Amino acid sequence: MNIVKPSIPKGTRDFTPTEMMRRNYIFDTIRSVFHKHACLPIETPSMENLSTLMGKYGEEGDRLLFKILNSGDFTQGVDFNESDMTPNRLATKICEKGLRYDLTVPFARFVVQHQNELTFPFKRYQMQPVWRADRPQKGRYREFYQCDVDIIGSTSLLNEAELVEITDEVFGKFGIAITMKINNRKILSGIAEVIGQADKVTDLCTAMDKLDKIGQDNVCAELLERGISQESIDKLMPVFSFGGQDNVEKIEQLKGILAGSEIGMKGVEELVTVLDYVKDMGLTTDLEIDITLARGLNYYTGAIFEVKAKDAAMGSISGGGRYDNLTGIFGLKNMSGVGISYGAERIYDVLNELNLFPDEILTPIKAIFINFGKEDEKYALAGLRQLRNAGIPSEIYPDSAKIGKQMSYANAKAIPFVIMAGENERNSNTYTLKNMGTGEQQQLPIDKIIEMLQ
Amino acid sequence: MNIVKPSIPKGTRDFTPTEMMRRNYIFDTIRSVFHKHACLPIETPSMENLSTLMGKYGEEGDRLLFKILNSGDFTQGVDFNESDMTPNRLATKICEKGLRYDLTVPFARFVVQHQNELTFPFKRYQMQPVWRADRPQKGRYREFYQCDVDIIGSTSLLNEAELVEITDEVFGKFGIAITMKINNRKILSGIAEVIGQADKVTDLCTAMDKLDKIGQDNVCAELLERGISQESIDKLMPVFSFGGQDNVEKIEQLKGILAGSEIGMKGVEELVTVLDYVKDMGLTTDLEIDITLARGLNYYTGAIFEVKAKDAAMGSISGGGRYDNLTGIFGLKNMSGVGISYGAERIYDVLNELNLFPDEILTPIKAIFINFGKEDEKYALAGLRQLRNAGIPSEIYPDSAKIGKQMSYANAKAIPFVIMAGENERNSNTYTLKNMGTGEQQQLPIDKIIEMLQ
Repeated sequence: MNIVKPSIPKGTRDFTPTEMMRRNYIFDTIRSVFHKHACLPIETPSMENLSTLMGKYGEEGDRLLFKILNSGDFTQGVDFNESDMTPNRLATKICEKGLRYDLTVPFARFVVQHQNELTFPFKRYQMQPVWRADRPQKGRYREFYQCDVDIIGSTSLLNEAELVEITDEVFGKFGIAITMKINNRKILSGIAEVIGQADKVTDLCTAMDKLDKIGQDNVCAELLERGISQESIDKLMPVFSFGGQDNVEKIEQLKGILAGSEIGMKGVEELVTVLDYVKDMGLTTDLEIDITLARGLNYYTGAIFEVKAKDAAMGSISGGGRYDNLTGIFGLKNMSGVGISYGAERIYDVLNELNLFPDEILTPIKAIFINFGKEDEKYALAGLRQLRNAGIPSEIYPDSAKIGKQMSYANAKAIPFVIMAGENERNSNTYTLKNMGTGEQQQLPIDKIIEMLQ
Repeated sequence: MNIVKPSIPKGTRDFTPTEMMRRNYIFDTIRSVFHKHACLPIETPSMENLSTLMGKYGEEGDRLLFKILNSGDFTQGVDFNESDMTPNRLATKICEKGLRYDLTVPFARFVVQHQNELTFPFKRYQMQPVWRADRPQKGRYREFYQCDVDIIGSTSLLNEAELVEITDEVFGKFGIAITMKINNRKILSGIAEVIGQADKVTDLCTAMDKLDKIGQDNVCAELLERGISQESIDKLMPVFSFGGQDNVEKIEQLKGILAGSEIGMKGVEELVTVLDYVKDMGLTTDLEIDITLARGLNYYTGAIFEVKAKDAAMGSISGGGRYDNLTGIFGLKNMSGVGISYGAERIYDVLNELNLFPDEILTPIKAIFINFGKEDEKYALAGLRQLRNAGIPSEIYPDSAKIGKQMSYANAKAIPFVIMAGENERNSNTYTLKNMGTGEQQQLPIDKIIEMLQ
């Protein structure tokens, strides 16, 4: 057998125990909040039929789908020399399946397929990896986790407020101070309407979304380029100068700007309802109306959310919104829902940057017994068993290696306590407990040691 | 957009909340035992380079690998009309990556690649899905989970005993009575040696492995077919008649059979050491020596394990063994390890068949507030917040729908308590708690309700 120098595909990662313990802290924390809010887990297969995935993420998305070669003789019936055969066309002939690109489309498919087994409103969460054949770069991977929560089958705006509450609680548990931006697609539609460009809402959103980055002049230039008239752009001025001390002032301004648009006023009304719910819930979330917030995804129809960490230089760490017809692509109408997604990788980087990972998650093993071999080993095993029966994660060095080697092992794994069980201890039915932090040693019966470690 | 009737690839599954809660119970239980035994988690990417995977699972395995089509123009530089172009050859030209087939090869790759970051002996666990393009059938899926634990970088047989202990604890927690069969590859080599067929140990194992199913005559026929002489087969008679009241008797018999084989006697010695350790540990595991146990995988060099449920008609639900040179394929020698794998899907089926899933895992939501709208809703939200702050998973129906509809929702989700908060309750600062099992209702202040639900 040839020896292969080991490597992994670019854009993918191995996770060592230290990384895993941090990642599990993130997933466990998010999951615990979801549970408290009565959200239930689902999972979907890593592979979906390409017919489910294609055309749902735009042309760019189709290109970034990982496609899986058909099993068996995938060449059967395929004419590779067919005229006009492009790589894309060929791909669809030799690949029927692709890897999940996000959790939203599979969720929509799931809801339609299992509609008769589910109880609506359905509050589901899903934490699974997704795959994108994107160019790998710092913080962008080809395999990464999404943590999505959605409430589908209810138009109640209480659900939007609950997502704010969940988000507040998640980041509160992490100790990450956040700003949560909120907008409503209907407000964006309203703006398009009042400037006389109701059919150009997507172009308007795409350009306005860049206001922070490229400034007003460049946004106006882009709008012109996208075929929006100068007259309409002039009417946008109140939007560019939009602002206010607080959300109350912003709402008042919005009512002025959007007075002529029914859908716009509906958006304002929804926004007000959500803000009122959040107040009723006693939340102190820094919730900021931002009418330039658009989020790329076309399926949003109501509220839109985006979360940023206040103290870290990082893009959005969470985002979501209301969609009225996500399941429509699979043939199920009138199934409005609202959801939000937490990016595990970015949360990891923020926790790391702000030094917010709790120390204790990195010392999962509480004690190690030194192995002196033979009878001593037997005595150590008896002690170990009692520790484990008491629920204390602990181990014994598996060989009676030199004590220096065993101590190095304990050190390298940051195990806080070493337990020695030699002849002396054995004869007095005790164990010597050494605190690796202070160097302090005590000779104690096992039940005292259990008490101390618990 | 065309409407696609939703479906998923054959051999894959969606998991509804009920299934997920059961599956999570399995994973959480196994994980808790791993933790207690100081095993640490790792994860590897779903995709590996095909060069890492190919040739590691035999010809059959290569065929069952899911291959991922290269991104971008995968046809570039590929001559589809090349003479002798077979589907297999073409696949390797247009696919560089494949989906993980098991957790063992990726683990070996991981250990070699990260050898300088790891502390040895390295006790790792890994619980991730694997993919095989197998023909789907009852209980066999194309995407399924493996839960592997390995101790690598130590030849100590204490590790074998620890795996027995872990297995005992895992199935003890599940309430599944098990028989754990144990053998040693060196015993099988010894048998091959004493019958004069040292180089035919694989053929011998493959045939002997079927003894239970096809009987002695058919095994002998197969051995002949595999080129083992009648003379050698005659010498196998003591092996066919192998048995004994208990492991002590079996060990004595083995010593007789294998007296002429150094490696065979080494195998017996290892077996005795492991059994002694298990006794020292105070375990009562039903551990049964079975010298026909071979397990297909060629990389085993020492102990071999297999676990069956006593009360369920199901193949092995767990298995593993010692390997001396798994990392050798990636260029790292002298890295002996021992591991065992738990099959989540089969454990699920056994728990289901024996009705062993605990009831409480299916009622994750403890209470639901009925939504009477407006002021009542506000009052209900206040109570809900207190319940959640106390850590009680609970929810409110998001709309002020008809009470019958809300009660049906509570019933369908098997929520044990319904809380009503109307004008009457609001005025007396109480809530009405209804036990859905007994129908009993009590009007109580929120702190009393929290006490009852905790």
